[in-house]
Amino acid sequence: MTDERFAPEDLSHDRFLGGRLTLAQPRRGYRAGIDPVLLAASVPARPDERVLELGSGVGTALFCLAARVSGLSLTGVERAPAYAALARDNAAANGIAARIVTADLAALPAELRQESFDHVLANPPYFDPAASSAASDPGREAGRSEETPLALWIEVAARRLRPGGRLTLIHRAERLPQILAALSDRLGAICVQPLAPREGREARLVLVRAAKGGRAPFRLLDPIRLHKGRAHLRDEDDYAPEIARVLRDGEALSFG
Amino acid sequence: MTDERFAPEDLSHDRFLGGRLTLAQPRRGYRAGIDPVLLAASVPARPDERVLELGSGVGTALFCLAARVSGLSLTGVERAPAYAALARDNAAANGIAARIVTADLAALPAELRQESFDHVLANPPYFDPAASSAASDPGREAGRSEETPLALWIEVAARRLRPGGRLTLIHRAERLPQILAALSDRLGAICVQPLAPREGREARLVLVRAAKGGRAPFRLLDPIRLHKGRAHLRDEDDYAPEIARVLRDGEALSFG
Repeated sequence: MTDERFAPEDLSHDRFLGGRLTLAQPRRGYRAGIDPVLLAASVPARPDERVLELGSGVGTALFCLAARVSGLSLTGVERAPAYAALARDNAAANGIAARIVTADLAALPAELRQESFDHVLANPPYFDPAASSAASDPGREAGRSEETPLALWIEVAARRLRPGGRLTLIHRAERLPQILAALSDRLGAICVQPLAPREGREARLVLVRAAKGGRAPFRLLDPIRLHKGRAHLRDEDDYAPEIARVLRDGEALSFG
Repeated sequence: MTDERFAPEDLSHDRFLGGRLTLAQPRRGYRAGIDPVLLAASVPARPDERVLELGSGVGTALFCLAARVSGLSLTGVERAPAYAALARDNAAANGIAARIVTADLAALPAELRQESFDHVLANPPYFDPAASSAASDPGREAGRSEETPLALWIEVAARRLRPGGRLTLIHRAERLPQILAALSDRLGAICVQPLAPREGREARLVLVRAAKGGRAPFRLLDPIRLHKGRAHLRDEDDYAPEIARVLRDGEALSFG
Protein backbone atom coordinates (compact mmCIF):
# COMPACT_ATOMS: atom_id res chain seq x y z
CA MET A 1 0.00 0.00 0.00
CA THR A 2 2.92 2.31 0.64
CA ASP A 3 3.43 3.49 -2.94
CA GLU A 4 0.10 2.65 -4.52
CA ARG A 5 -3.25 4.30 -4.83
CA PHE A 6 -6.41 2.62 -3.67
CA ALA A 7 -8.38 0.94 -6.44
CA PRO A 8 -11.76 2.62 -7.00
CA GLU A 9 -13.64 -0.53 -6.01
CA ASP A 10 -11.87 -0.46 -2.63
CA LEU A 11 -13.27 2.98 -1.81
CA SER A 12 -16.50 4.12 -0.25
CA HIS A 13 -17.80 7.67 -0.55
CA ASP A 14 -19.18 8.93 2.73
CA ARG A 15 -21.06 12.05 3.63
CA PHE A 16 -19.96 14.23 6.56
CA LEU A 17 -21.50 17.34 8.14
CA GLY A 18 -24.96 16.68 6.79
CA GLY A 19 -23.63 16.31 3.26
CA ARG A 20 -21.41 19.42 3.15
CA LEU A 21 -18.51 17.08 2.51
CA THR A 22 -18.29 13.77 0.66
CA LEU A 23 -15.04 11.97 1.33
CA ALA A 24 -13.61 8.89 -0.32
CA GLN A 25 -12.03 6.48 2.10
CA PRO A 26 -10.89 2.87 1.90
CA ARG A 27 -13.55 0.29 2.70
CA ARG A 28 -10.98 -1.56 4.79
CA GLY A 29 -8.27 -0.09 6.97
CA TYR A 30 -8.60 3.10 8.95
CA ARG A 31 -12.02 4.68 8.47
CA ALA A 32 -13.13 7.96 9.96
CA GLY A 33 -15.78 7.74 12.66
CA ILE A 34 -16.97 10.79 14.52
CA ASP A 35 -13.60 11.40 16.17
CA PRO A 36 -12.00 13.54 13.44
CA VAL A 37 -15.27 15.46 13.09
CA LEU A 38 -15.28 16.25 16.82
CA LEU A 39 -11.60 17.13 16.61
CA ALA A 40 -12.21 19.62 13.80
CA ALA A 41 -15.16 21.11 15.69
CA SER A 42 -12.84 21.72 18.68
CA VAL A 43 -10.11 23.66 16.90
CA PRO A 44 -10.53 27.32 17.89
CA ALA A 45 -9.43 28.59 14.48
CA ARG A 46 -10.44 31.97 13.08
CA PRO A 47 -10.67 32.84 9.39
CA ASP A 48 -7.42 33.00 7.45
CA GLU A 49 -5.26 31.29 10.07
CA ARG A 50 -2.62 28.69 9.27
CA VAL A 51 -3.50 25.12 10.25
CA LEU A 52 -1.41 21.94 10.29
CA GLU A 53 -2.79 18.47 10.81
CA LEU A 54 -0.39 15.69 11.75
CA GLY A 55 -1.48 12.29 10.46
CA SER A 56 -4.18 13.76 8.25
CA GLY A 57 -5.28 10.45 6.67
CA VAL A 58 -7.89 11.07 3.95
CA GLY A 59 -8.35 14.62 5.28
CA THR A 60 -11.53 14.25 7.31
CA ALA A 61 -10.61 16.58 10.19
CA LEU A 62 -8.87 19.14 7.99
CA PHE A 63 -11.76 19.36 5.54
CA CYS A 64 -14.42 19.45 8.27
CA LEU A 65 -12.53 22.40 9.73
CA ALA A 66 -12.39 24.08 6.32
CA ALA A 67 -16.16 23.67 6.02
CA ARG A 68 -16.64 25.64 9.26
CA VAL A 69 -13.96 28.34 9.11
CA SER A 70 -13.28 30.31 5.94
CA GLY A 71 -9.98 31.18 4.36
CA LEU A 72 -7.79 28.81 6.33
CA SER A 73 -4.40 27.86 4.99
CA LEU A 74 -4.47 24.07 5.37
CA THR A 75 -1.52 21.68 5.56
CA GLY A 76 -1.77 17.97 6.24
CA VAL A 77 1.08 15.57 6.88
CA GLU A 78 0.40 11.91 6.14
CA ARG A 79 2.91 9.10 6.08
CA ALA A 80 0.94 6.61 3.92
CA PRO A 81 1.13 7.72 0.26
CA ALA A 82 -2.18 6.07 -0.67
CA TYR A 83 -3.99 8.00 2.08
CA ALA A 84 -2.20 11.22 1.15
CA ALA A 85 -3.22 10.78 -2.49
CA LEU A 86 -6.81 10.18 -1.44
CA ALA A 87 -6.72 13.32 0.72
CA ARG A 88 -5.61 15.34 -2.35
CA ASP A 89 -8.47 13.82 -4.37
CA ASN A 90 -10.91 14.59 -1.56
CA ALA A 91 -9.75 18.20 -1.36
CA ALA A 92 -10.22 18.67 -5.08
CA ALA A 93 -13.61 16.93 -5.12
CA ASN A 94 -14.86 19.21 -2.34
CA GLY A 95 -13.36 22.41 -3.73
CA ILE A 96 -10.98 22.84 -0.80
CA ALA A 97 -7.44 24.17 -1.19
CA ALA A 98 -5.05 22.11 0.92
CA ARG A 99 -1.43 21.11 0.82
CA ILE A 100 -0.98 17.44 1.70
CA VAL A 101 2.62 16.48 2.40
CA THR A 102 3.58 12.81 2.29
CA ALA A 103 6.05 12.48 5.12
CA ASP A 104 6.77 10.76 8.39
CA LEU A 105 6.35 12.92 11.47
CA ALA A 106 9.79 11.95 12.61
CA ALA A 107 11.32 13.37 9.41
CA LEU A 108 9.34 16.37 8.22
CA PRO A 109 10.67 17.97 5.04
CA ALA A 110 12.91 21.00 5.57
CA GLU A 111 10.30 23.32 4.06
CA LEU A 112 7.78 22.37 6.77
CA ARG A 113 10.35 22.61 9.53
CA GLN A 114 10.76 26.29 8.66
CA GLU A 115 7.07 27.07 8.98
CA SER A 116 4.95 27.78 12.00
CA PHE A 117 1.21 27.51 12.43
CA ASP A 118 -1.60 29.08 14.42
CA HIS A 119 -3.12 25.66 15.03
CA VAL A 120 -1.94 22.09 14.98
CA LEU A 121 -4.44 19.27 15.25
CA ALA A 122 -4.02 15.53 15.51
CA ASN A 123 -5.96 12.33 16.05
CA PRO A 124 -3.04 10.00 16.72
CA PRO A 125 -3.50 6.24 16.30
CA TYR A 126 -5.32 4.72 19.25
CA PHE A 127 -3.68 1.36 19.69
CA ASP A 128 -0.39 0.90 21.40
CA PRO A 129 1.37 -2.01 19.67
CA ALA A 130 3.33 -2.67 22.84
CA ALA A 131 0.09 -3.13 24.78
CA SER A 132 -2.06 -5.11 22.34
CA SER A 133 -1.69 -7.84 19.78
CA ALA A 134 -1.29 -6.76 16.18
CA ALA A 135 -4.50 -6.32 14.25
CA SER A 136 -5.12 -9.06 11.72
CA ASP A 137 -5.84 -6.54 8.96
CA PRO A 138 -2.56 -4.91 7.94
CA GLY A 139 -4.37 -1.88 6.50
CA ARG A 140 -6.13 -1.36 9.78
CA GLU A 141 -2.87 -1.88 11.59
CA ALA A 142 -1.11 0.74 9.48
CA GLY A 143 -3.81 3.30 10.16
CA ARG A 144 -4.25 2.59 13.83
CA SER A 145 -1.10 1.25 15.37
CA GLU A 146 1.27 3.40 17.25
CA GLU A 147 4.57 3.01 15.46
CA THR A 148 5.24 6.69 16.15
CA PRO A 149 5.25 7.30 19.91
CA LEU A 150 2.54 9.60 21.18
CA ALA A 151 5.18 11.84 22.74
CA LEU A 152 6.70 12.41 19.32
CA TRP A 153 3.36 13.56 17.89
CA ILE A 154 3.17 16.13 20.65
CA GLU A 155 6.80 17.17 20.34
CA VAL A 156 6.46 17.75 16.60
CA ALA A 157 3.18 19.62 17.09
CA ALA A 158 4.73 21.88 19.73
CA ARG A 159 7.68 22.70 17.49
CA ARG A 160 5.45 23.72 14.61
CA LEU A 161 3.23 26.09 16.65
CA ARG A 162 3.89 29.80 16.64
CA PRO A 163 4.12 31.43 20.10
CA GLY A 164 0.53 31.56 21.34
CA GLY A 165 -0.50 28.94 18.78
CA ARG A 166 -2.71 26.12 19.90
CA LEU A 167 -2.66 22.35 19.73
CA THR A 168 -5.93 20.41 19.66
CA LEU A 169 -5.94 16.64 19.80
CA ILE A 170 -8.33 13.79 20.40
CA HIS A 171 -7.30 10.48 21.91
CA ARG A 172 -8.41 7.69 24.19
CA ALA A 173 -8.92 8.77 27.79
CA GLU A 174 -6.67 5.98 28.99
CA ARG A 175 -3.70 7.67 27.33
CA LEU A 176 -4.19 10.92 29.23
CA PRO A 177 -1.16 10.40 31.51
CA GLN A 178 1.16 10.06 28.54
CA ILE A 179 -0.45 13.01 26.76
CA LEU A 180 -0.08 15.26 29.79
CA ALA A 181 3.47 14.11 30.40
CA ALA A 182 4.42 14.96 26.83
CA LEU A 183 2.61 18.28 26.91
CA SER A 184 3.84 19.47 30.26
CA ASP A 185 7.32 20.43 29.25
CA ARG A 186 6.33 21.99 25.96
CA LEU A 187 2.93 23.70 26.09
CA GLY A 188 0.77 25.42 28.71
CA ALA A 189 -2.85 26.32 29.42
CA ILE A 190 -3.69 22.64 29.04
CA CYS A 191 -7.40 21.95 28.99
CA VAL A 192 -8.95 18.46 28.93
CA GLN A 193 -12.49 17.99 27.66
CA PRO A 194 -13.63 14.44 28.47
CA LEU A 195 -16.09 12.83 26.06
CA ALA A 196 -18.33 10.27 27.75
CA PRO A 197 -20.64 7.98 25.79
CA ARG A 198 -23.65 9.08 27.85
CA GLU A 199 -24.82 10.13 31.32
CA GLY A 200 -23.32 8.06 34.11
CA ARG A 201 -20.57 6.57 31.93
CA GLU A 202 -16.91 7.38 32.20
CA ALA A 203 -15.01 9.15 29.44
CA ARG A 204 -13.59 6.97 26.67
CA LEU A 205 -12.13 9.86 24.70
CA VAL A 206 -10.54 13.16 25.59
CA LEU A 207 -10.13 16.32 23.58
CA VAL A 208 -7.04 18.18 24.73
CA ARG A 209 -6.12 21.76 23.97
CA ALA A 210 -2.90 23.50 24.90
CA ALA A 211 -1.15 26.74 23.95
CA LYS A 212 2.48 27.44 23.20
CA GLY A 213 3.68 29.70 25.97
CA GLY A 214 0.30 29.46 27.75
CA ARG A 215 0.43 30.06 31.50
CA ALA A 216 -3.15 29.42 32.58
CA PRO A 217 -3.60 26.55 35.07
CA PHE A 218 -4.56 23.09 33.87
CA ARG A 219 -8.32 22.57 33.61
CA LEU A 220 -10.31 19.34 33.68
CA LEU A 221 -13.66 20.25 32.17
CA ASP A 222 -17.05 18.75 32.81
CA PRO A 223 -17.60 15.81 30.43
CA ILE A 224 -19.56 16.22 27.24
CA ARG A 225 -22.05 13.37 26.73
CA LEU A 226 -22.08 12.10 23.15
CA HIS A 227 -25.48 10.42 23.43
CA LYS A 228 -28.74 11.31 25.11
CA GLY A 229 -29.97 9.55 28.20
CA ARG A 230 -28.47 6.77 30.29
CA ALA A 231 -29.05 3.94 27.79
CA HIS A 232 -29.56 3.39 24.08
CA LEU A 233 -33.29 2.73 23.88
CA ARG A 234 -34.30 2.96 20.24
CA ASP A 235 -32.91 1.66 17.00
CA GLU A 236 -31.69 5.03 15.76
CA ASP A 237 -28.85 7.32 16.59
CA ASP A 238 -29.39 9.28 19.75
CA TYR A 239 -26.66 11.92 19.72
CA ALA A 240 -26.96 14.65 22.29
CA PRO A 241 -28.23 17.88 20.67
CA GLU A 242 -24.89 19.71 20.80
CA ILE A 243 -23.15 16.70 19.24
CA ALA A 244 -25.80 16.42 16.53
CA ARG A 245 -25.23 20.09 15.70
CA VAL A 246 -21.53 19.36 15.29
CA LEU A 247 -21.98 16.23 13.20
CA ARG A 248 -24.89 17.34 11.03
CA ASP A 249 -24.67 21.12 10.93
CA GLY A 250 -20.90 21.56 11.16
CA GLU A 251 -21.02 23.74 14.27
CA ALA A 252 -18.11 24.30 16.62
CA LEU A 253 -17.98 22.21 19.78
CA SER A 254 -18.08 24.36 22.91
CA PHE A 255 -15.86 23.06 25.67
CA GLY A 256 -16.99 22.78 29.27
CA MET B 1 5.02 26.90 66.20
CA THR B 2 7.57 24.24 65.33
CA ASP B 3 8.35 23.06 68.84
CA GLU B 4 5.33 24.24 70.77
CA ARG B 5 1.87 22.99 71.48
CA PHE B 6 -1.16 25.05 70.62
CA ALA B 7 -2.63 26.94 73.56
CA PRO B 8 -6.11 25.67 74.50
CA GLU B 9 -7.68 29.02 73.64
CA ASP B 10 -6.30 28.74 70.13
CA LEU B 11 -8.18 25.48 69.48
CA SER B 12 -11.66 24.73 68.27
CA HIS B 13 -13.34 21.36 68.74
CA ASP B 14 -15.19 20.29 65.64
CA ARG B 15 -17.52 17.40 64.97
CA PHE B 16 -16.99 15.12 61.99
CA LEU B 17 -19.04 12.20 60.58
CA GLY B 18 -22.24 13.27 62.27
CA GLY B 19 -20.51 13.49 65.65
CA ARG B 20 -18.69 10.13 65.58
CA LEU B 21 -15.47 12.11 65.88
CA THR B 22 -14.67 15.36 67.66
CA LEU B 23 -11.32 16.77 66.66
CA ALA B 24 -9.37 19.67 68.10
CA GLN B 25 -7.77 21.88 65.50
CA PRO B 26 -6.21 25.33 65.54
CA ARG B 27 -8.58 28.20 64.99
CA ARG B 28 -6.05 29.74 62.65
CA GLY B 29 -3.77 27.97 60.21
CA TYR B 30 -4.68 24.83 58.32
CA ARG B 31 -8.21 23.68 59.16
CA ALA B 32 -9.86 20.56 57.82
CA GLY B 33 -12.72 21.09 55.43
CA ILE B 34 -14.46 18.21 53.74
CA ASP B 35 -11.39 17.20 51.75
CA PRO B 36 -9.77 14.89 54.32
CA VAL B 37 -13.19 13.36 55.02
CA LEU B 38 -13.69 12.59 51.32
CA LEU B 39 -10.13 11.28 51.15
CA ALA B 40 -10.73 8.87 54.04
CA ALA B 41 -14.00 7.74 52.46
CA SER B 42 -12.11 6.88 49.26
CA VAL B 43 -9.45 4.63 50.77
CA PRO B 44 -10.40 1.03 49.87
CA ALA B 45 -9.10 -0.37 53.16
CA ARG B 46 -10.35 -3.59 54.68
CA PRO B 47 -10.29 -4.45 58.39
CA ASP B 48 -6.90 -4.98 59.99
CA GLU B 49 -4.84 -3.55 57.14
CA ARG B 50 -1.84 -1.28 57.63
CA VAL B 51 -2.40 2.37 56.71
CA LEU B 52 0.03 5.28 56.43
CA GLU B 53 -0.97 8.91 56.01
CA LEU B 54 1.61 11.38 54.80
CA GLY B 55 1.08 14.88 56.17
CA SER B 56 -1.52 13.73 58.66
CA GLY B 57 -2.05 17.13 60.32
CA VAL B 58 -4.42 16.81 63.29
CA GLY B 59 -5.44 13.35 62.04
CA THR B 60 -8.75 14.11 60.36
CA ALA B 61 -8.42 11.69 57.44
CA LEU B 62 -6.77 8.95 59.46
CA PHE B 63 -9.39 9.06 62.20
CA CYS B 64 -12.31 9.29 59.76
CA LEU B 65 -10.94 6.14 58.15
CA ALA B 66 -10.64 4.45 61.54
CA ALA B 67 -14.28 5.30 62.22
CA ARG B 68 -15.34 3.40 59.07
CA VAL B 69 -12.98 0.41 58.97
CA SER B 70 -12.21 -1.64 62.06
CA GLY B 71 -8.90 -2.91 63.31
CA LEU B 72 -6.66 -0.78 61.11
CA SER B 73 -3.06 -0.25 62.07
CA LEU B 74 -2.71 3.52 61.67
CA THR B 75 0.44 5.55 61.15
CA GLY B 76 0.56 9.26 60.46
CA VAL B 77 3.61 11.31 59.50
CA GLU B 78 3.44 15.02 60.27
CA ARG B 79 6.26 17.53 60.06
CA ALA B 80 4.84 20.21 62.36
CA PRO B 81 5.26 19.08 66.00
CA ALA B 82 2.28 21.11 67.24
CA TYR B 83 -0.02 19.42 64.72
CA ALA B 84 1.45 16.00 65.50
CA ALA B 85 0.87 16.55 69.22
CA LEU B 86 -2.70 17.58 68.54
CA ALA B 87 -3.21 14.45 66.43
CA ARG B 88 -2.03 12.30 69.36
CA ASP B 89 -4.46 14.14 71.65
CA ASN B 90 -7.25 13.68 69.13
CA ALA B 91 -6.55 9.95 68.84
CA ALA B 92 -6.70 9.55 72.60
CA ALA B 93 -9.83 11.66 72.97
CA ASN B 94 -11.63 9.55 70.37
CA GLY B 95 -10.38 6.20 71.61
CA ILE B 96 -8.36 5.49 68.47
CA ALA B 97 -4.98 3.75 68.49
CA ALA B 98 -2.61 5.52 66.13
CA ARG B 99 1.10 6.09 65.85
CA ILE B 100 1.88 9.68 64.88
CA VAL B 101 5.49 10.20 63.80
CA THR B 102 6.88 13.73 63.78
CA ALA B 103 9.05 13.77 60.69
CA ASP B 104 9.64 15.40 57.37
CA LEU B 105 8.64 13.32 54.37
CA ALA B 106 12.05 13.87 52.86
CA ALA B 107 13.71 12.28 55.90
CA LEU B 108 11.53 9.54 57.33
CA PRO B 109 12.99 7.78 60.37
CA ALA B 110 14.78 4.51 59.65
CA GLU B 111 12.08 2.52 61.44
CA LEU B 112 9.44 3.75 59.00
CA ARG B 113 11.66 3.23 56.00
CA GLN B 114 11.73 -0.47 56.84
CA GLU B 115 7.96 -0.81 56.91
CA SER B 116 5.46 -1.26 54.13
CA PHE B 117 1.74 -0.55 54.07
CA ASP B 118 -1.42 -1.78 52.41
CA HIS B 119 -2.58 1.80 51.92
CA VAL B 120 -1.00 5.21 51.81
CA LEU B 121 -3.18 8.31 51.78
CA ALA B 122 -2.35 11.98 51.44
CA ASN B 123 -3.94 15.38 51.08
CA PRO B 124 -0.83 17.35 50.10
CA PRO B 125 -0.81 21.15 50.53
CA TYR B 126 -2.72 22.87 47.77
CA PHE B 127 -0.78 26.00 47.13
CA ASP B 128 2.35 26.08 45.08
CA PRO B 129 4.55 28.83 46.57
CA ALA B 130 6.25 29.23 43.20
CA ALA B 131 2.92 30.05 41.59
CA SER B 132 1.26 32.30 44.15
CA SER B 133 2.19 35.04 46.56
CA ALA B 134 2.86 34.00 50.13
CA ALA B 135 -0.15 33.91 52.40
CA SER B 136 -0.22 36.71 54.92
CA ASP B 137 -0.92 34.28 57.76
CA PRO B 138 2.26 32.32 58.50
CA GLY B 139 0.31 29.52 60.19
CA ARG B 140 -1.84 29.13 57.14
CA GLU B 141 1.25 29.25 54.99
CA ALA B 142 2.93 26.49 56.98
CA GLY B 143 -0.06 24.20 56.64
CA ARG B 144 -0.83 24.90 53.02
CA SER B 145 2.26 25.85 51.15
CA GLU B 146 4.15 23.41 49.07
CA GLU B 147 7.63 23.40 50.48
CA THR B 148 7.78 19.67 49.79
CA PRO B 149 7.34 19.07 46.05
CA LEU B 150 4.26 17.11 45.09
CA ALA B 151 6.43 14.58 43.27
CA LEU B 152 8.23 13.82 46.53
CA TRP B 153 4.95 13.05 48.30
CA ILE B 154 4.16 10.54 45.59
CA GLU B 155 7.65 9.08 45.53
CA VAL B 156 7.64 8.54 49.30
CA ALA B 157 4.13 7.06 49.16
CA ALA B 158 5.12 4.65 46.40
CA ARG B 159 8.16 3.48 48.34
CA ARG B 160 6.15 2.70 51.44
CA LEU B 161 3.47 0.64 49.66
CA ARG B 162 3.68 -3.13 49.62
CA PRO B 163 3.35 -4.75 46.18
CA GLY B 164 -0.34 -4.46 45.31
CA GLY B 165 -0.78 -1.76 47.94
CA ARG B 166 -2.76 1.33 47.03
CA LEU B 167 -2.24 5.06 47.17
CA THR B 168 -5.24 7.37 47.55
CA LEU B 169 -4.82 11.11 47.39
CA ILE B 170 -6.90 14.23 47.01
CA HIS B 171 -5.65 17.39 45.38
CA ARG B 172 -6.65 20.30 43.21
CA ALA B 173 -7.67 19.30 39.70
CA GLU B 174 -5.26 21.81 38.26
CA ARG B 175 -2.33 19.78 39.61
CA LEU B 176 -3.40 16.61 37.78
CA PRO B 177 -0.59 16.80 35.20
CA GLN B 178 2.07 16.86 37.92
CA ILE B 179 0.32 14.09 39.86
CA LEU B 180 0.10 11.83 36.84
CA ALA B 181 3.67 12.56 35.85
CA ALA B 182 4.89 11.59 39.32
CA LEU B 183 2.68 8.49 39.44
CA SER B 184 3.42 7.19 35.99
CA ASP B 185 6.85 5.81 36.65
CA ARG B 186 6.03 4.38 40.03
CA LEU B 187 2.46 3.08 40.27
CA GLY B 188 -0.14 1.64 37.90
CA ALA B 189 -3.89 1.17 37.56
CA ILE B 190 -4.27 4.91 38.01
CA CYS B 191 -7.85 6.04 38.44
CA VAL B 192 -8.96 9.69 38.64
CA GLN B 193 -12.27 10.58 40.26
CA PRO B 194 -13.05 14.25 39.55
CA LEU B 195 -15.05 16.12 42.19
CA ALA B 196 -17.13 18.94 40.73
CA PRO B 197 -18.94 21.47 42.89
CA ARG B 198 -22.25 20.75 41.17
CA GLU B 199 -23.91 19.86 37.84
CA GLY B 200 -22.46 21.76 34.90
CA ARG B 201 -19.35 22.91 36.77
CA GLU B 202 -15.86 21.68 36.13
CA ALA B 203 -13.90 19.68 38.69
CA ARG B 204 -11.94 21.64 41.28
CA LEU B 205 -10.65 18.60 43.10
CA VAL B 206 -9.56 15.13 42.08
CA LEU B 207 -9.32 11.94 44.05
CA VAL B 208 -6.61 9.73 42.61
CA ARG B 209 -6.04 6.05 43.28
CA ALA B 210 -3.15 3.95 42.05
CA ALA B 211 -1.71 0.54 42.84
CA LYS B 212 1.87 -0.59 43.23
CA GLY B 213 2.50 -2.96 40.34
CA GLY B 214 -0.99 -2.33 38.93
CA ARG B 215 -1.32 -2.91 35.19
CA ALA B 216 -4.90 -1.85 34.48
CA PRO B 217 -5.27 1.08 32.04
CA PHE B 218 -5.68 4.60 33.29
CA ARG B 219 -9.31 5.57 33.94
CA LEU B 220 -10.89 9.02 34.05
CA LEU B 221 -14.16 8.50 35.92
CA ASP B 222 -17.39 10.38 35.63
CA PRO B 223 -17.35 13.36 38.03
CA ILE B 224 -19.00 13.17 41.40
CA ARG B 225 -21.06 16.30 42.14
CA LEU B 226 -20.58 17.54 45.70
CA HIS B 227 -23.75 19.61 45.76
CA LYS B 228 -27.27 19.12 44.43
CA GLY B 229 -28.59 21.03 41.45
CA ARG B 230 -26.99 23.62 39.23
CA ALA B 231 -26.95 26.51 41.73
CA HIS B 232 -27.00 27.09 45.47
CA LEU B 233 -30.56 28.22 46.04
CA ARG B 234 -31.21 28.10 49.76
CA ASP B 235 -29.31 29.21 52.82
CA GLU B 236 -28.40 25.70 53.96
CA ASP B 237 -25.97 23.08 52.86
CA ASP B 238 -27.09 21.19 49.81
CA TYR B 239 -24.71 18.25 49.58
CA ALA B 240 -25.59 15.57 47.07
CA PRO B 241 -27.07 12.51 48.85
CA GLU B 242 -24.00 10.31 48.38
CA ILE B 243 -21.76 13.08 49.73
CA ALA B 244 -24.06 13.66 52.69
CA ARG B 245 -23.84 9.94 53.50
CA VAL B 246 -20.05 10.24 53.51
CA LEU B 247 -19.91 13.39 55.61
CA ARG B 248 -22.71 12.63 58.08
CA ASP B 249 -22.91 8.84 58.18
CA GLY B 250 -19.26 7.97 57.57
CA GLU B 251 -19.97 5.83 54.52
CA ALA B 252 -17.39 4.93 51.87
CA LEU B 253 -17.34 7.00 48.70
CA SER B 254 -18.04 4.90 45.62
CA PHE B 255 -15.98 5.93 42.63
CA GLY B 256 -17.42 6.32 39.14
